[in-house]
Amino acid sequence: MDFALSPTAIKLRDELLGFMDECVYPAEADLPHGDPQVLEDLKAEARRRGLWNLFFPGRLSNVDYAPLAEVMGRSLLAPEACNCAAPDTANMELLALFGTDEQKARWLEPLLDGEIRSAFAMTEPAVASSDATNISCRIERQGGEYVVNGRKWWISGAASPRCEVFIVMGKTDPDAVAYNQQSMILVPVATAGVTVVRNLPVFGYTDREGHCEVLFDNVRVPAAHLLGPVGAGFLMAQARLGPGRVHHCMRTIGVAERALELMCRRVRDRVAFGKPLADQGVIQQWIADARIEIDQARLYTLHAAWLMDSEGNRAARHAVSGIKVAVPNMALRVIDHAIQAHGAAGIGDDFPLAWMYAHVRALRLADGPDEVHRGVVARNELRKWAN
Amino acid sequence: MDFALSPTAIKLRDELLGFMDECVYPAEADLPHGDPQVLEDLKAEARRRGLWNLFFPGRLSNVDYAPLAEVMGRSLLAPEACNCAAPDTANMELLALFGTDEQKARWLEPLLDGEIRSAFAMTEPAVASSDATNISCRIERQGGEYVVNGRKWWISGAASPRCEVFIVMGKTDPDAVAYNQQSMILVPVATAGVTVVRNLPVFGYTDREGHCEVLFDNVRVPAAHLLGPVGAGFLMAQARLGPGRVHHCMRTIGVAERALELMCRRVRDRVAFGKPLADQGVIQQWIADARIEIDQARLYTLHAAWLMDSEGNRAARHAVSGIKVAVPNMALRVIDHAIQAHGAAGIGDDFPLAWMYAHVRALRLADGPDEVHRGVVARNELRKWAN
Amino acid sequence: MDFALSPTAIKLRDELLGFMDECVYPAEADLPHGDPQVLEDLKAEARRRGLWNLFFPGRLSNVDYAPLAEVMGRSLLAPEACNCAAPDTANMELLALFGTDEQKARWLEPLLDGEIRSAFAMTEPAVASSDATNISCRIERQGGEYVVNGRKWWISGAASPRCEVFIVMGKTDPDAVAYNQQSMILVPVATAGVTVVRNLPVFGYTDREGHCEVLFDNVRVPAAHLLGPVGAGFLMAQARLGPGRVHHCMRTIGVAERALELMCRRVRDRVAFGKPLADQGVIQQWIADARIEIDQARLYTLHAAWLMDSEGNRAARHAVSGIKVAVPNMALRVIDHAIQAHGAAGIGDDFPLAWMYAHVRALRLADGPDEVHRGVVARNELRKWAN
Amino acid sequence: MDFALSPTAIKLRDELLGFMDECVYPAEADLPHGDPQVLEDLKAEARRRGLWNLFFPGRLSNVDYAPLAEVMGRSLLAPEACNCAAPDTANMELLALFGTDEQKARWLEPLLDGEIRSAFAMTEPAVASSDATNISCRIERQGGEYVVNGRKWWISGAASPRCEVFIVMGKTDPDAVAYNQQSMILVPVATAGVTVVRNLPVFGYTDREGHCEVLFDNVRVPAAHLLGPVGAGFLMAQARLGPGRVHHCMRTIGVAERALELMCRRVRDRVAFGKPLADQGVIQQWIADARIEIDQARLYTLHAAWLMDSEGNRAARHAVSGIKVAVPNMALRVIDHAIQAHGAAGIGDDFPLAWMYAHVRALRLADGPDEVHRGVVARNELRKWAN
Repeated sequence: MDFALSPTAIKLRDELLGFMDECVYPAEADLPHGDPQVLEDLKAEARRRGLWNLFFPGRLSNVDYAPLAEVMGRSLLAPEACNCAAPDTANMELLALFGTDEQKARWLEPLLDGEIRSAFAMTEPAVASSDATNISCRIERQGGEYVVNGRKWWISGAASPRCEVFIVMGKTDPDAVAYNQQSMILVPVATAGVTVVRNLPVFGYTDREGHCEVLFDNVRVPAAHLLGPVGAGFLMAQARLGPGRVHHCMRTIGVAERALELMCRRVRDRVAFGKPLADQGVIQQWIADARIEIDQARLYTLHAAWLMDSEGNRAARHAVSGIKVAVPNMALRVIDHAIQAHGAAGIGDDFPLAWMYAHVRALRLADGPDEVHRGVVARNELRKWAN
Repeated sequence: MDFALSPTAIKLRDELLGFMDECVYPAEADLPHGDPQVLEDLKAEARRRGLWNLFFPGRLSNVDYAPLAEVMGRSLLAPEACNCAAPDTANMELLALFGTDEQKARWLEPLLDGEIRSAFAMTEPAVASSDATNISCRIERQGGEYVVNGRKWWISGAASPRCEVFIVMGKTDPDAVAYNQQSMILVPVATAGVTVVRNLPVFGYTDREGHCEVLFDNVRVPAAHLLGPVGAGFLMAQARLGPGRVHHCMRTIGVAERALELMCRRVRDRVAFGKPLADQGVIQQWIADARIEIDQARLYTLHAAWLMDSEGNRAARHAVSGIKVAVPNMALRVIDHAIQAHGAAGIGDDFPLAWMYAHVRALRLADGPDEVHRGVVARNELRKWAN
Repeated sequence: MDFALSPTAIKLRDELLGFMDECVYPAEADLPHGDPQVLEDLKAEARRRGLWNLFFPGRLSNVDYAPLAEVMGRSLLAPEACNCAAPDTANMELLALFGTDEQKARWLEPLLDGEIRSAFAMTEPAVASSDATNISCRIERQGGEYVVNGRKWWISGAASPRCEVFIVMGKTDPDAVAYNQQSMILVPVATAGVTVVRNLPVFGYTDREGHCEVLFDNVRVPAAHLLGPVGAGFLMAQARLGPGRVHHCMRTIGVAERALELMCRRVRDRVAFGKPLADQGVIQQWIADARIEIDQARLYTLHAAWLMDSEGNRAARHAVSGIKVAVPNMALRVIDHAIQAHGAAGIGDDFPLAWMYAHVRALRLADGPDEVHRGVVARNELRKWAN
Repeated sequence: MDFALSPTAIKLRDELLGFMDECVYPAEADLPHGDPQVLEDLKAEARRRGLWNLFFPGRLSNVDYAPLAEVMGRSLLAPEACNCAAPDTANMELLALFGTDEQKARWLEPLLDGEIRSAFAMTEPAVASSDATNISCRIERQGGEYVVNGRKWWISGAASPRCEVFIVMGKTDPDAVAYNQQSMILVPVATAGVTVVRNLPVFGYTDREGHCEVLFDNVRVPAAHLLGPVGAGFLMAQARLGPGRVHHCMRTIGVAERALELMCRRVRDRVAFGKPLADQGVIQQWIADARIEIDQARLYTLHAAWLMDSEGNRAARHAVSGIKVAVPNMALRVIDHAIQAHGAAGIGDDFPLAWMYAHVRALRLADGPDEVHRGVVARNELRKWAN
C-alpha cells in the first residue's frame, strides 16, 4: 500500500498549482463582471502550459487525474480553463467510446479544442428521475430519421452561446425490458423544435452557462445521429456516470479545501470578545472536523478511482455510489461552518461560500439523489450475507 | 397549564387563515414577476379586514400575537400585507417606546399607515458585529447637530423605494464603559452623505426590499433626531430585539410548516421504484422528524412569549436566546429534507424551498450568531450552580 | 395559553422537592450496596408525606402529574419510593380500568399498598415485537382454564422477590382479524410452568428488579384470570401505553436535568489548560444545547399530557408517539455530553451517567422502537394532505 | 498510489482469517463463562501458526500490521490470543525501545512469551488528565531508590492475575519546564505499598482483566527501575501512543465491521410488517452509511500508518489525532444502529453489541478526549495560514 502520488501526478499537480496561483486566482475577481474574454485567455494559457484535456480517457489513470480534478475544483474558472469541465468531459468520453467517425469529427474534435460546448439531457420535470425507468422522452424511428419528443430540465450548459449539441436520453422502445428501453441521440441545438424554455436558478444563482429547461417538440434528426447501439442508453449512462462522479467528487473536495482555507484565514483576522475567532474552541472544532472529514473523503474517492483503474468501472460502482453520497454531504458541512465563521459576509457575494453551498447542495440531487445511491450500497452489502 | 389559544387569538387566527386562503396564496404567483400593486391591494384588503398592525405593542400579548406571526410567516407576502414585516415592526416599537412626539408624528404615523418603510442600521462589515462592543460607527455632537460616520451592511429594507428613515446605532461616547458607548439616531434616507452602496444577495437572491451596504459619510442631522437617551443604544437594542426575535421565530415556524406541507404534497404525488415516495420509510422519517421538531419549537417559542408577558422581557432573555438558536436550525433541517424530497425542483424557483433555505440560513447570523446566543444560555445555566 | 403550573401541581411539586432533598438524594449512596430496607424506609416516609400513588388514574390530571414524574425521574429511588414506578403504575391502571372486583382485591390493593410488585409480559425473543401482530404466545381456553404457552423477555420487575403477578399478552384467537387476536391474562408468578430463565443485563447492568426472560410452559390459570374482554388485548395495550409513555418521558426529562446538573457542577470544578472546563466554548455549547433541548422536550411532553386530558388518549396518540421518539433521543445526547465532560469518571460508577445512558438507550426500543413511532407520526401527517 | 495490500500483509491476513474462522469465533461462546484455559489454548495455537507478536516493532511496517489489527479487532479474544493486546503491545514497545538489558530480561521476554501481562498507569482521578501537565503522581529519588506516591485509575489489565508490572508516569521534577517534569518507572505489582483499590466498571461491564484504581503509597523501587531518561516521560508517552492509537483504531474498525455484519444478518432474518427488516428503507440507510463511514475510516487510518512508516511518528501526529477522533465516533454510530436493528436483543448479552458500544465509548476518553485531539488538528491547520 502506497499513498504517494505517482511522478506523473506530482509533476502535473505542481504545474497546475502554478497555473492556479499565477493565472486563475488573479482572474477570479474579474469574472463575475462577466468578461468571457478572461476565460478565453485562461484557456489559451492552460493549453500553452500543457494543462489541457487532462481528463481525456486513456491519457491519465483515474487515480492520477483525481488529484488534478481536486486542484481545478478550487476555482470555478479552472475546470473550463483546462477544458475539463462538466458536462463536456463526460460527453467527450461518450463520443470517444461510442461515437462514429462522423460524429467524432463533427462534435468531439471541436469539443477537445474548446471551441464548442455540449449538454446532456436526461432529467425530466414530470417524473421522479431518480428512477431512470421513469424517463418518458420518446425517440421514434421514422424512416431515415428519429423524432424526439420530450421535456427535459436541469440541462447544464444549455444556456451557453457555445453549446452546439445535446446528447438526449429517451425511449426508443417503451415495450422492451426496463433497462433496454432507452437510447442516446445527438441533437444539434439549432434543430427545429428545440426550445430552451428557461434557465433555472440554483438557490437564486443564475449561472451563465445555465441549468435549463429544454423542450424537444417533434425534433427530427438523421438516424445516423444515434449514439451507440439502440437500447443501450441506460448502460451507456451508467458507464458515463462512473468517472464523471469521481471527477465531481474530487472537484468537490477542492471546493471543501477552499472553504476551509477561507475559514482559517477569516478567523485568524477577526476579533470578538477580546480574542481572535481562531482561539474560540467551537471554531477550532469546526476546523478540526473539516480537516478530518476532508481527508477521509479524499482517500475514499481516490480509492474508488483506483478501483476503477484496477478492477474496472463495473466492479467500482458501489464504491462510486458511496463517494457520491459521502463527498457532497461532507463538503456542505464544511462550507456551512465556513459561512458561519464569516458572519453575514458568508451568505453574500464578497466570498464564494454561499455560491459553493448552493452548487454542492445540487450535487446531492444530480446524477441520482443520495437515497438512491445509499440503496445501491446497502443492497450490495446485504448481498454479502445473503444466506 | 393550558395550551389552548385565547378566544382573541382564535378569532384573529381564523380571520387571518381566511385572508391567507382567499387573498395571499392566490397572489403569490404574481409577485415574483414584480407587480408592487399586488402588494398594495393586499394591504388595503388586510386593513379592511382588521388584520393590520396586529403586532403593535399593547394591542395583543406576545402569546396571542405569536400564532398570528406563524400564520403570516407561511407566505413571503403576508407580513408586509398586514404591516407586520421586519424590520418595521421592531422600529415602530422603538419609536412608540422611545420616540418624541415630533419623531412619532414624522415617522411612526406613516409607518403605522404602511405608507413608508424603515431600516435598522447596526451591523458593520469591518468588525465582528457578533460582539456589539466592536461597532465603530461614530455619532458625534457638533453644536445643534449630530454627525454620523460609518459603514453598515445587511441593512434590510434599505433598497425599498418607500424606505424613508434609518435608525442608526453608533458610538456617541467611545470612552464610556462598554455598554454605555452607543446611541440610536434617526437618519432620513434623503440626507446628504447617505449612500446605499449595494444590495447584497442572500445565496444569490437579490431581494426587492434589499439587504444593503450603506455608507454614512459626514451625515448631519439635527440633535432632535436622537432616539431615546444618549448612551442607551445598547439597552434599547436589547429591548428591541426581544419581541422581534419571538416574531422572527414564529414566522420561521410558519416557514417550516409550509415546507412540511409542500413535502407531504409532493411525495404523495410522485412515484419512484413502483410506489409513491410517501411510502418510502426514509421519507416518512423526514416527515415524522419535521412534525416532532416543529411542534417542539413552536411550544418553546410560545413559552418564551408567555415569559415575556408574565415576567418581562429581561427575565425572558435567556429563553429568547434559546429560541433564536433552536428555531432556525430546526427549520433548516425541515426545509433541507423538503428540498431533497422535491428532487431538482427543490433548488430552483418552481417552489419557494431554496429561497426559504437561504433566508432562514441568514437568521442563524442575524441579530447575533448561534454561538453568541448559546453562550448566553450556557452562562445562565452555569450561574445556577455557581455555589 | 398559560404555562403556569396549577396550584395543586405547585404544592405537590414543592413537597416532592423537599422529599428529594431531605430523604431521597441522601439515600442514594446507600442503595448500590443493596440494602432493601433503605427503600422501605423511603416508602414509609413518602406515604407519611402524602406523596404516595400520585399517578393513580383520576387523582391528578396528566398535566398535573407530569411535572411530578419529572422530579421523581431525577433519582432511581424516587419512583418506587412513591409507589409510582414502572411497570406497576401502568399495570395498576389496567387493573383499575378492566379488573373484576376479585382481581382488584387480590392484586390491585396490595399493589397500591406497595406490598407486591407486578410485571407486564409482551415482548418475545423469537419475533420482531415492534410489529405487535407478530406476538406468538398462545392463551388457549380449555374448560374452566386458560393454558398459556410462550417465551417472553425483557420483562421488567420479574426478578423482584416481591413480584407476584404477570399480565401476559398472547393470542386467544390466532384466526381473528389482526388486532382482535390477542388477550391479556393474569398469571401468578408461583403458578406451575412459569420459569424466570434469566435476568438480562442492560449494557452490563444487571438490575435488581430485573429485565427477565420468562418461559410459560403449559401454564394453567382459572378462566377468571382473563383481564378485560377476550380479544381486547391489543386495544388495552394501546390504552395502557399512552399515559405510561408520558410518565416515562417525563421521568426521562428528569434524568436529563440531573445529567445537566452533574455536567455543570463538574465543569465548574475541573481545571484543564489553565482554566475551568466551564470556560471552554465547546463545553458551553453542550450546556446550551442541553438546556435548549430539555426545555423543548418538556413542553412537548406536557402538551401531549394536556391533549390526553382535554381530548382523550386516542386523539393524543400521535403526539404520544412524537414524545416517545423525541425525549429519549434528546436525553441520550445530553447524557453523552455529560459523560464526555466527566472524562473517564463518566463511564464508571462514581457517577450515575453511564447507568442513565444504558437505561435511556433501552427506551428507544421499549414500547416500540423509534422507527415504529415515527411511522405513526408520519402517516398521520400525510393523511392531512391525502387529496 | 496503490491501495493493494503487500504480499506479506495478504499472506498474514489470510492466515489470520483462517485462525479466526477455525479457532477464535468457535471459542467465543465459551469465554464469558470464564474458562481461562480456552484463551491459553488459543494462544498456543496462534503461536503454532506463526500469528504471534505480529505487532512487534520492526517486524512489520505499520501499514502492513494495520489490516491484521483490524481482523483481530473483530473478536474480543483475538488480540490476546495473538499476544497483540493493549496495553501490553505498547508497553513491550516501550521496553524494546528504552529498556535496559536487565529490564528487558525481566519483563520484555516473558511479555513476548505471553507469560505475564503489564499495565500502564498514567490517568489520575483527582485531575483533568486530558491536560497531561496536570498529572500529580510523585516519583522521588531517595538514595538508590525511587519512591512513588500517587493515585491512578482506569489502569487496564491491572486486575489480571498475570499482571506483573506497572509502567508508572509521574513527576520526578515538578519544577522543570512543563514537558520535562515527568518520568516513567517500572513498578512490580507485588511491591509493598501498591494496592489495587477496585476494578471500575465500563457501563456496567466489569472486565476480567480490569480497569482499576491503583494506589501507590510510598512505593519503593530500585533506581534501576527507571525506564528511559529522567524527565523524558512525556516524550516517551507521546512516542508510545502513536502506534498504539493506530492499533486501537484499526481494531475498532474491526469492531465496526463485526457490528455491520451482525446488523446485516439480523435484518435479513427478521420480519416485521410483512417484509424482512432488510427491505426497510431506513435500515438500508443505516447499512449504507455504515459501509461508507467504515471504508473512509479504514483508509484514513491506513494513511496515518503509512505516514508513520514514511515520514516518522512525529510528522504523523496530527493525522493520528485525526483518526483518534474519527474512528471511535464512526464505530459508535455503526454499533448504535446495529443495536437498534436488533431490538431489545441489542442491549443484552446475546449479542456483543452493547459491550462493543460501552468499550468503544471509552475510547473517546482514553488517551486524550476527542476535544484535545481536535485541538491538535485545528492548531496544525491554522498554522498553515498563519500569514
